[in-house]
Amino acid sequence: MREKFVVYGRNPVREALRGPRRVYRVWQAEEAETLQREAAMDGVPVVPVSRDELGAIANSRDHQGVAAEVEPYGYANAETLLDDEDALVIVLDEIQDPQNLGAVCRSAECAGATGIVIPERRSAAVTPAVCKASAGAVEHLSVARVRNVADFLALARERGAWVYGAEAGATAHYTELDYDGRTVVVLGAEGRGIRPRVRAGCDGMISLPVRGAIESLNVSSAATVILYEALRKRSARSSEI
Amino acid sequence: MREKFVVYGRNPVREALRGPRRVYRVWQAEEAETLQREAAMDGVPVVPVSRDELGAIANSRDHQGVAAEVEPYGYANAETLLDDEDALVIVLDEIQDPQNLGAVCRSAECAGATGIVIPERRSAAVTPAVCKASAGAVEHLSVARVRNVADFLALARERGAWVYGAEAGATAHYTELDYDGRTVVVLGAEGRGIRPRVRAGCDGMISLPVRGAIESLNVSSAATVILYEALRKRSARSSEI
Repeated sequence: MREKFVVYGRNPVREALRGPRRVYRVWQAEEAETLQREAAMDGVPVVPVSRDELGAIANSRDHQGVAAEVEPYGYANAETLLDDEDALVIVLDEIQDPQNLGAVCRSAECAGATGIVIPERRSAAVTPAVCKASAGAVEHLSVARVRNVADFLALARERGAWVYGAEAGATAHYTELDYDGRTVVVLGAEGRGIRPRVRAGCDGMISLPVRGAIESLNVSSAATVILYEALRKRSARSSEI
Repeated sequence: MREKFVVYGRNPVREALRGPRRVYRVWQAEEAETLQREAAMDGVPVVPVSRDELGAIANSRDHQGVAAEVEPYGYANAETLLDDEDALVIVLDEIQDPQNLGAVCRSAECAGATGIVIPERRSAAVTPAVCKASAGAVEHLSVARVRNVADFLALARERGAWVYGAEAGATAHYTELDYDGRTVVVLGAEGRGIRPRVRAGCDGMISLPVRGAIESLNVSSAATVILYEALRKRSARSSEI
Protein backbone atom coordinates (compact mmCIF):
# COMPACT_ATOMS: atom_id res chain seq x y z
CA MET A 1 0.00 0.00 0.00
CA ARG A 2 1.37 3.39 -0.94
CA GLU A 3 1.91 6.09 1.68
CA LYS A 4 -0.84 8.69 1.47
CA PHE A 5 -0.03 12.29 0.54
CA VAL A 6 -2.78 14.86 0.79
CA VAL A 7 -3.36 18.46 -0.18
CA TYR A 8 -6.36 20.41 1.11
CA GLY A 9 -8.15 23.65 0.37
CA ARG A 10 -9.81 24.97 -2.80
CA ASN A 11 -6.79 26.57 -4.46
CA PRO A 12 -4.31 23.79 -3.56
CA VAL A 13 -6.60 21.05 -4.93
CA ARG A 14 -7.43 23.00 -8.09
CA GLU A 15 -3.75 23.75 -8.77
CA ALA A 16 -2.78 20.13 -8.07
CA LEU A 17 -5.30 19.11 -10.76
CA ARG A 18 -3.85 21.70 -13.15
CA GLY A 19 -0.19 20.98 -12.33
CA PRO A 20 2.19 18.11 -13.06
CA ARG A 21 1.53 16.17 -9.85
CA ARG A 22 -0.62 13.05 -10.19
CA VAL A 23 -3.94 13.27 -8.33
CA TYR A 24 -5.48 9.96 -7.28
CA ARG A 25 -8.79 11.15 -5.88
CA VAL A 26 -10.62 14.20 -4.64
CA TRP A 27 -12.65 14.18 -1.42
CA GLN A 28 -15.41 16.71 -1.24
CA ALA A 29 -17.88 17.77 1.45
CA GLU A 30 -21.48 18.38 0.44
CA GLU A 31 -21.76 22.12 0.40
CA ALA A 32 -18.32 22.87 -1.01
CA GLU A 33 -17.84 24.75 -4.27
CA THR A 34 -17.46 21.96 -6.78
CA LEU A 35 -14.22 20.98 -8.43
CA GLN A 36 -15.95 18.09 -10.21
CA ARG A 37 -15.49 19.49 -13.69
CA GLU A 38 -11.74 19.94 -13.16
CA ALA A 39 -11.46 16.46 -11.63
CA ALA A 40 -13.52 14.85 -14.40
CA MET A 41 -11.28 16.39 -17.05
CA ASP A 42 -8.37 14.55 -15.49
CA GLY A 43 -10.37 11.36 -14.90
CA VAL A 44 -9.99 11.76 -11.13
CA PRO A 45 -12.77 10.24 -9.00
CA VAL A 46 -14.58 12.61 -6.62
CA VAL A 47 -15.57 10.98 -3.33
CA PRO A 48 -18.28 12.66 -1.23
CA VAL A 49 -17.43 12.82 2.50
CA SER A 50 -18.62 14.66 5.59
CA ARG A 51 -16.76 17.73 6.83
CA ASP A 52 -15.62 15.76 9.87
CA GLU A 53 -14.18 13.00 7.70
CA LEU A 54 -12.48 15.65 5.62
CA GLY A 55 -10.96 17.20 8.73
CA ALA A 56 -9.49 13.82 9.63
CA ILE A 57 -8.20 13.22 6.08
CA ALA A 58 -6.62 16.69 5.85
CA ASN A 59 -5.48 16.67 9.48
CA SER A 60 -6.53 20.31 9.49
CA ARG A 61 -9.70 22.36 9.82
CA ASP A 62 -8.54 24.64 7.07
CA HIS A 63 -9.73 22.40 4.21
CA GLN A 64 -12.57 24.57 2.81
CA GLY A 65 -14.55 21.42 2.04
CA VAL A 66 -12.09 19.75 -0.31
CA ALA A 67 -8.92 17.62 -0.24
CA ALA A 68 -7.07 15.38 -2.67
CA GLU A 69 -4.75 12.41 -2.53
CA VAL A 70 -1.69 13.22 -4.59
CA GLU A 71 1.70 11.78 -5.40
CA PRO A 72 4.57 13.13 -3.26
CA TYR A 73 5.73 16.65 -4.11
CA GLY A 74 8.34 16.54 -6.86
CA TYR A 75 11.29 18.65 -5.78
CA ALA A 76 13.41 20.20 -8.50
CA ASN A 77 17.15 19.79 -8.96
CA ALA A 78 18.83 22.88 -7.52
CA GLU A 79 21.59 22.97 -10.14
CA THR A 80 19.05 22.96 -12.98
CA LEU A 81 17.56 26.17 -11.60
CA LEU A 82 20.78 27.90 -12.70
CA ASP A 83 20.63 26.76 -16.33
CA ASP A 84 18.74 29.76 -17.65
CA GLU A 85 21.05 32.73 -18.09
CA ASP A 86 18.32 34.95 -16.63
CA ALA A 87 17.66 32.63 -13.70
CA LEU A 88 16.12 34.37 -10.69
CA VAL A 89 16.36 32.15 -7.62
CA ILE A 90 15.31 32.79 -4.02
CA VAL A 91 17.19 30.90 -1.30
CA LEU A 92 15.50 30.64 2.09
CA ASP A 93 18.01 29.94 4.85
CA GLU A 94 16.22 27.85 7.49
CA ILE A 95 12.77 29.41 7.25
CA GLN A 96 10.70 27.19 9.51
CA ASP A 97 7.32 28.88 9.37
CA PRO A 98 5.11 27.14 6.75
CA GLN A 99 3.12 30.37 6.28
CA ASN A 100 6.27 32.24 5.29
CA LEU A 101 7.55 29.51 2.95
CA GLY A 102 4.13 29.26 1.30
CA ALA A 103 3.81 33.04 0.94
CA VAL A 104 7.27 33.31 -0.68
CA CYS A 105 6.37 30.49 -3.10
CA ARG A 106 3.15 32.25 -4.11
CA SER A 107 4.93 35.55 -4.79
CA ALA A 108 7.81 33.82 -6.61
CA GLU A 109 5.39 32.00 -8.89
CA CYS A 110 3.48 35.23 -9.62
CA ALA A 111 6.67 37.17 -10.32
CA GLY A 112 7.92 34.49 -12.73
CA ALA A 113 10.96 33.52 -10.65
CA THR A 114 12.87 30.40 -11.71
CA GLY A 115 12.53 28.74 -8.35
CA ILE A 116 13.18 28.48 -4.63
CA VAL A 117 15.99 26.69 -2.83
CA ILE A 118 15.60 25.47 0.76
CA PRO A 119 17.89 23.37 2.96
CA GLU A 120 16.92 19.76 3.68
CA ARG A 121 17.24 20.30 7.42
CA ARG A 122 15.86 22.90 9.84
CA SER A 123 13.54 24.26 7.15
CA ALA A 124 9.86 23.93 6.42
CA ALA A 125 9.39 21.52 3.50
CA VAL A 126 6.53 21.55 0.97
CA THR A 127 3.91 20.17 3.38
CA PRO A 128 0.13 20.41 2.92
CA ALA A 129 0.18 23.57 5.10
CA VAL A 130 2.73 25.14 2.74
CA CYS A 131 0.64 24.14 -0.31
CA LYS A 132 -2.30 25.90 1.36
CA ALA A 133 -0.30 29.00 2.30
CA SER A 134 0.98 29.22 -1.28
CA ALA A 135 -2.60 29.04 -2.69
CA GLY A 136 -1.38 26.05 -4.73
CA ALA A 137 1.47 27.99 -6.36
CA VAL A 138 3.98 25.27 -5.38
CA GLU A 139 2.38 23.01 -8.02
CA HIS A 140 3.72 25.31 -10.76
CA LEU A 141 6.96 26.43 -9.13
CA SER A 142 10.33 24.69 -8.92
CA VAL A 143 11.33 24.14 -5.30
CA ALA A 144 14.69 22.46 -4.71
CA ARG A 145 16.19 21.09 -1.51
CA VAL A 146 19.93 21.19 -0.91
CA ARG A 147 22.07 19.56 1.75
CA ASN A 148 24.19 22.65 2.21
CA VAL A 149 23.13 26.19 1.37
CA ALA A 150 26.68 27.62 1.31
CA ASP A 151 27.73 24.94 -1.22
CA PHE A 152 24.79 25.88 -3.43
CA LEU A 153 25.80 29.55 -3.32
CA ALA A 154 29.38 28.62 -4.28
CA LEU A 155 28.03 26.61 -7.21
CA ALA A 156 25.79 29.50 -8.26
CA ARG A 157 28.75 31.89 -8.27
CA GLU A 158 30.79 29.40 -10.31
CA ARG A 159 27.95 29.33 -12.80
CA GLY A 160 28.11 33.11 -13.12
CA ALA A 161 25.31 34.13 -10.78
CA TRP A 162 25.36 37.22 -8.58
CA VAL A 163 24.44 36.24 -5.05
CA TYR A 164 22.90 38.80 -2.68
CA GLY A 165 21.84 38.39 0.91
CA ALA A 166 18.93 40.43 2.27
CA GLU A 167 19.73 41.86 5.68
CA ALA A 168 18.17 44.70 7.67
CA GLY A 169 20.60 47.58 7.87
CA ALA A 170 22.75 46.67 4.85
CA THR A 171 24.02 49.88 3.21
CA ALA A 172 23.05 48.94 -0.35
CA HIS A 173 19.34 49.08 -1.09
CA TYR A 174 17.61 46.41 -3.17
CA THR A 175 16.75 49.13 -5.72
CA GLU A 176 20.46 49.57 -6.57
CA LEU A 177 20.82 46.13 -8.16
CA ASP A 178 20.24 45.72 -11.89
CA TYR A 179 19.06 42.08 -11.54
CA ASP A 180 20.75 41.35 -14.85
CA GLY A 181 21.76 37.77 -15.66
CA ARG A 182 21.64 34.92 -13.16
CA THR A 183 20.57 36.36 -9.81
CA VAL A 184 20.28 34.61 -6.46
CA VAL A 185 18.77 36.34 -3.41
CA VAL A 186 19.13 34.80 0.05
CA LEU A 187 16.76 35.56 2.94
CA GLY A 188 17.08 34.30 6.50
CA ALA A 189 14.60 33.56 9.24
CA GLU A 190 13.01 36.45 11.10
CA GLY A 191 15.01 37.40 14.15
CA ARG A 192 18.00 35.17 13.41
CA GLY A 193 18.75 36.31 9.85
CA ILE A 194 21.19 34.58 7.50
CA ARG A 195 23.76 32.21 9.07
CA PRO A 196 27.39 33.45 8.98
CA ARG A 197 28.67 30.73 6.60
CA VAL A 198 25.80 31.44 4.21
CA ARG A 199 26.35 35.18 4.51
CA ALA A 200 30.04 34.64 3.63
CA GLY A 201 28.90 33.02 0.38
CA CYS A 202 27.17 36.19 -0.83
CA ASP A 203 28.68 38.73 -3.23
CA GLY A 204 26.97 41.50 -1.30
CA MET A 205 24.21 42.37 1.13
CA ILE A 206 21.12 44.42 0.38
CA SER A 207 18.38 45.90 2.53
CA LEU A 208 14.92 47.32 2.17
CA PRO A 209 14.52 50.81 3.59
CA VAL A 210 12.34 51.03 6.68
CA ARG A 211 10.77 54.32 7.66
CA GLY A 212 8.82 53.31 10.73
CA ALA A 213 9.34 52.32 14.34
CA ILE A 214 9.37 48.53 13.95
CA GLU A 215 12.48 46.66 12.98
CA SER A 216 11.80 44.91 9.73
CA LEU A 217 9.39 43.61 7.17
CA ASN A 218 8.06 40.11 7.27
CA VAL A 219 10.40 37.79 5.32
CA SER A 220 7.79 37.01 2.68
CA SER A 221 7.03 40.72 2.23
CA ALA A 222 10.74 41.43 1.78
CA ALA A 223 11.07 38.62 -0.76
CA THR A 224 8.02 39.88 -2.66
CA VAL A 225 9.33 43.44 -2.89
CA ILE A 226 12.70 42.20 -4.18
CA LEU A 227 11.06 39.83 -6.71
CA TYR A 228 8.87 42.60 -8.10
CA GLU A 229 11.80 45.02 -8.29
CA ALA A 230 13.67 42.40 -10.33
CA LEU A 231 10.63 41.95 -12.58
CA ARG A 232 10.29 45.73 -13.01
CA LYS A 233 13.96 46.20 -13.95
CA ARG A 234 13.92 43.23 -16.30
CA SER A 235 10.70 44.32 -18.00
CA ALA A 236 12.05 47.84 -18.46
CA ARG A 237 15.18 46.41 -20.15
CA SER A 238 13.28 44.07 -22.45
CA SER A 239 10.93 46.87 -23.54
CA GLU A 240 13.99 48.99 -24.47
CA ILE A 241 15.22 46.38 -26.92
CA MET B 1 -14.57 47.53 36.52
CA ARG B 2 -13.08 48.33 33.15
CA GLU B 3 -13.43 45.93 30.21
CA LYS B 4 -10.20 44.05 29.66
CA PHE B 5 -8.21 44.50 26.41
CA VAL B 6 -5.24 42.25 25.84
CA VAL B 7 -2.38 41.96 23.40
CA TYR B 8 -0.16 38.88 23.27
CA GLY B 9 3.12 37.83 21.74
CA ARG B 10 6.66 39.21 22.14
CA ASN B 11 6.56 41.88 19.42
CA PRO B 12 3.00 43.08 20.16
CA VAL B 13 3.70 43.51 23.89
CA ARG B 14 7.06 45.22 23.29
CA GLU B 15 5.55 47.61 20.74
CA ALA B 16 2.58 48.33 23.03
CA LEU B 17 5.12 49.34 25.71
CA ARG B 18 6.94 51.55 23.21
CA GLY B 19 3.81 53.00 21.60
CA PRO B 20 1.16 55.50 22.74
CA ARG B 21 -1.28 52.95 24.14
CA ARG B 22 -1.45 52.72 27.93
CA VAL B 23 -0.27 49.34 29.30
CA TYR B 24 -1.69 48.34 32.70
CA ARG B 25 0.23 45.14 33.34
CA VAL B 26 2.34 42.50 31.64
CA TRP B 27 1.78 38.78 32.26
CA GLN B 28 4.79 36.60 31.69
CA ALA B 29 5.41 32.85 31.77
CA GLU B 30 8.57 31.60 33.47
CA GLU B 31 10.81 30.68 30.58
CA ALA B 32 9.84 33.57 28.29
CA GLU B 33 12.39 36.07 27.06
CA THR B 34 12.04 38.89 29.50
CA LEU B 35 10.40 42.21 28.78
CA GLN B 36 10.91 43.30 32.38
CA ARG B 37 13.34 46.08 31.57
CA GLU B 38 10.94 47.61 29.01
CA ALA B 39 8.01 47.23 31.42
CA ALA B 40 9.97 48.69 34.36
CA MET B 41 10.90 51.75 32.31
CA ASP B 42 7.21 52.45 31.92
CA GLY B 43 6.39 51.54 35.52
CA VAL B 44 4.25 48.63 34.37
CA PRO B 45 3.95 45.68 36.80
CA VAL B 46 5.06 42.27 35.48
CA VAL B 47 2.96 39.40 36.79
CA PRO B 48 4.38 35.86 36.60
CA VAL B 49 1.84 33.28 35.37
CA SER B 50 1.85 29.73 34.03
CA ARG B 51 1.69 29.10 30.28
CA ASP B 52 -1.81 27.67 30.73
CA GLU B 53 -3.00 30.78 32.53
CA LEU B 54 -1.45 32.86 29.78
CA GLY B 55 -3.30 30.83 27.13
CA ALA B 56 -6.55 31.60 28.93
CA ILE B 57 -5.69 35.32 29.30
CA ALA B 58 -4.66 35.64 25.64
CA ASN B 59 -7.43 33.33 24.42
CA SER B 60 -4.79 31.99 22.03
CA ARG B 61 -1.89 29.56 22.07
CA ASP B 62 0.17 31.96 20.04
CA HIS B 63 1.28 34.10 23.00
CA GLN B 64 5.03 33.24 23.07
CA GLY B 65 4.99 33.44 26.85
CA VAL B 66 3.84 37.02 27.22
CA ALA B 67 0.68 39.14 27.17
CA ALA B 68 -0.35 42.58 28.36
CA GLU B 69 -3.48 44.35 29.47
CA VAL B 70 -3.80 47.54 27.46
CA GLU B 71 -6.26 50.34 26.88
CA PRO B 72 -8.53 49.89 23.82
CA TYR B 73 -6.87 50.49 20.46
CA GLY B 74 -7.03 54.17 19.54
CA TYR B 75 -8.33 54.46 16.02
CA ALA B 76 -7.28 57.50 14.02
CA ASN B 77 -9.59 59.99 12.36
CA ALA B 78 -9.77 59.12 8.66
CA GLU B 79 -9.97 62.72 7.48
CA THR B 80 -6.81 63.65 9.38
CA LEU B 81 -4.90 61.05 7.38
CA LEU B 82 -5.34 63.33 4.36
CA ASP B 83 -3.84 66.44 5.99
CA ASP B 84 -0.28 65.85 4.84
CA GLU B 85 0.14 66.85 1.20
CA ASP B 86 2.25 63.72 0.66
CA ALA B 87 -0.26 61.46 2.43
CA LEU B 88 -0.03 57.82 1.35
CA VAL B 89 -3.10 55.93 2.51
CA ILE B 90 -4.10 52.30 1.97
CA VAL B 91 -7.83 51.52 2.01
CA LEU B 92 -8.82 47.89 2.59
CA ASP B 93 -12.31 47.16 1.30
CA GLU B 94 -13.80 44.47 3.54
CA ILE B 95 -10.66 42.47 4.25
CA GLN B 96 -11.84 39.96 6.85
CA ASP B 97 -8.72 37.88 7.36
CA PRO B 98 -6.82 39.16 10.46
CA GLN B 99 -3.56 37.79 9.02
CA ASN B 100 -3.96 39.93 5.91
CA LEU B 101 -4.94 43.08 7.80
CA GLY B 102 -2.02 42.60 10.20
CA ALA B 103 0.44 41.96 7.36
CA VAL B 104 -0.66 45.09 5.49
CA CYS B 105 -0.30 47.15 8.68
CA ARG B 106 3.23 45.86 9.21
CA SER B 107 4.31 46.69 5.66
CA ALA B 108 2.60 50.09 5.76
CA GLU B 109 4.37 50.99 8.97
CA CYS B 110 7.73 49.89 7.53
CA ALA B 111 7.19 51.79 4.29
CA GLY B 112 6.30 54.97 6.17
CA ALA B 113 2.71 55.16 4.92
CA THR B 114 0.42 57.70 6.57
CA GLY B 115 -2.17 55.12 7.56
CA ILE B 116 -4.78 52.52 6.77
CA VAL B 117 -8.53 52.96 6.36
CA ILE B 118 -10.95 50.08 6.96
CA PRO B 119 -14.75 49.99 7.01
CA GLU B 120 -16.53 49.62 10.36
CA ARG B 121 -18.51 46.64 9.14
CA ARG B 122 -17.59 43.39 7.37
CA SER B 123 -13.90 44.03 8.02
CA ALA B 124 -11.35 42.68 10.46
CA ALA B 125 -10.75 45.28 13.18
CA VAL B 126 -7.53 45.79 15.19
CA THR B 127 -7.99 42.70 17.36
CA PRO B 128 -5.24 40.95 19.36
CA ALA B 129 -4.76 38.56 16.39
CA VAL B 130 -4.19 41.53 14.09
CA CYS B 131 -1.72 43.07 16.57
CA LYS B 132 0.15 39.74 16.50
CA ALA B 133 0.06 39.43 12.71
CA SER B 134 1.38 42.99 12.42
CA ALA B 135 4.30 42.23 14.79
CA GLY B 136 3.06 45.15 16.89
CA ALA B 137 3.22 47.64 13.99
CA VAL B 138 -0.37 48.78 14.64
CA GLU B 139 0.88 50.51 17.81
CA HIS B 140 2.83 52.99 15.65
CA LEU B 141 0.49 53.22 12.66
CA SER B 142 -2.69 55.24 12.17
CA VAL B 143 -5.62 52.96 11.44
CA ALA B 144 -8.97 54.66 10.84
CA ARG B 145 -12.43 53.16 10.57
CA VAL B 146 -15.07 54.70 8.31
CA ARG B 147 -18.77 54.04 7.99
CA ASN B 148 -18.68 54.19 4.20
CA VAL B 149 -15.60 53.55 2.07
CA ALA B 150 -17.00 55.24 -1.06
CA ASP B 151 -17.71 58.41 0.95
CA PHE B 152 -14.13 58.42 2.21
CA LEU B 153 -12.82 58.14 -1.35
CA ALA B 154 -15.03 61.05 -2.44
CA LEU B 155 -13.66 63.11 0.43
CA ALA B 156 -10.10 62.14 -0.48
CA ARG B 157 -10.63 63.27 -4.08
CA GLU B 158 -12.13 66.55 -2.84
CA ARG B 159 -9.00 67.03 -0.78
CA GLY B 160 -6.88 66.61 -3.90
CA ALA B 161 -5.84 62.96 -3.55
CA TRP B 162 -5.44 60.58 -6.47
CA VAL B 163 -7.35 57.41 -5.74
CA TYR B 164 -6.33 54.13 -7.37
CA GLY B 165 -7.88 50.70 -7.04
CA ALA B 166 -5.73 47.58 -7.31
CA GLU B 167 -7.36 44.96 -9.49
CA ALA B 168 -5.94 41.91 -11.26
CA GLY B 169 -6.00 42.48 -15.00
CA ALA B 170 -6.14 46.29 -14.94
CA THR B 171 -4.28 47.65 -17.97
CA ALA B 172 -2.21 50.20 -16.08
CA HIS B 173 0.62 48.77 -14.00
CA TYR B 174 1.40 50.03 -10.52
CA THR B 175 4.84 51.09 -11.82
CA GLU B 176 3.25 53.70 -14.10
CA LEU B 177 2.03 55.91 -11.24
CA ASP B 178 4.25 58.70 -9.95
CA TYR B 179 2.80 58.52 -6.39
CA ASP B 180 3.21 62.29 -6.20
CA GLY B 181 1.07 64.23 -3.73
CA ARG B 182 -1.80 62.74 -1.75
CA THR B 183 -2.21 59.14 -2.89
CA VAL B 184 -4.86 56.62 -1.86
CA VAL B 185 -4.67 52.97 -2.94
CA VAL B 186 -7.68 50.67 -2.47
CA LEU B 187 -7.39 46.87 -2.26
CA GLY B 188 -10.26 44.41 -2.01
CA ALA B 189 -10.66 40.98 -0.49
CA GLU B 190 -9.11 38.01 -2.26
CA GLY B 191 -11.55 36.44 -4.67
CA ARG B 192 -14.22 39.14 -4.41
CA GLY B 193 -12.09 42.19 -5.14
CA ILE B 194 -13.24 45.78 -4.70
CA ARG B 195 -17.01 46.39 -4.47
CA PRO B 196 -18.55 48.19 -7.49
CA ARG B 197 -19.51 51.37 -5.61
CA VAL B 198 -16.00 51.63 -4.16
CA ARG B 199 -14.47 50.91 -7.56
CA ALA B 200 -16.57 53.74 -9.03
CA GLY B 201 -14.94 56.10 -6.53
CA CYS B 202 -11.45 55.47 -7.94
CA ASP B 203 -9.68 57.73 -10.44
CA GLY B 204 -8.16 54.66 -12.08
CA MET B 205 -7.33 51.00 -11.65
CA ILE B 206 -3.86 49.50 -11.46
CA SER B 207 -2.54 45.95 -11.49
CA LEU B 208 0.60 44.06 -10.65
CA PRO B 209 1.96 41.96 -13.50
CA VAL B 210 1.72 38.21 -12.97
CA ARG B 211 3.95 35.86 -14.93
CA GLY B 212 2.90 32.52 -13.55
CA ALA B 213 0.01 30.08 -13.63
CA ILE B 214 -1.87 31.19 -10.52
CA GLU B 215 -4.29 34.06 -10.56
CA SER B 216 -2.99 36.68 -8.23
CA LEU B 217 -0.77 37.73 -5.39
CA ASN B 218 -1.91 37.65 -1.82
CA VAL B 219 -3.55 40.98 -0.92
CA SER B 220 -0.86 41.87 1.63
CA SER B 221 1.90 41.07 -0.89
CA ALA B 222 0.21 43.30 -3.47
CA ALA B 223 -0.11 46.12 -0.93
CA THR B 224 3.54 45.75 0.07
CA VAL B 225 4.80 45.91 -3.52
CA ILE B 226 2.74 49.06 -4.18
CA LEU B 227 3.88 50.71 -0.91
CA TYR B 228 7.54 50.07 -1.72
CA GLU B 229 7.15 51.33 -5.28
CA ALA B 230 5.68 54.54 -3.85
CA LEU B 231 8.59 54.79 -1.40
CA ARG B 232 11.10 54.17 -4.23
CA LYS B 233 9.59 56.84 -6.50
CA ARG B 234 9.31 59.35 -3.66
CA SER B 235 12.86 58.73 -2.44
CA ALA B 236 14.20 59.12 -5.99
CA ARG B 237 12.41 62.47 -6.29
CA SER B 238 13.58 63.79 -2.94
CA SER B 239 17.20 62.85 -3.70
CA GLU B 240 16.95 64.83 -6.97
CA ILE B 241 16.06 68.02 -5.15
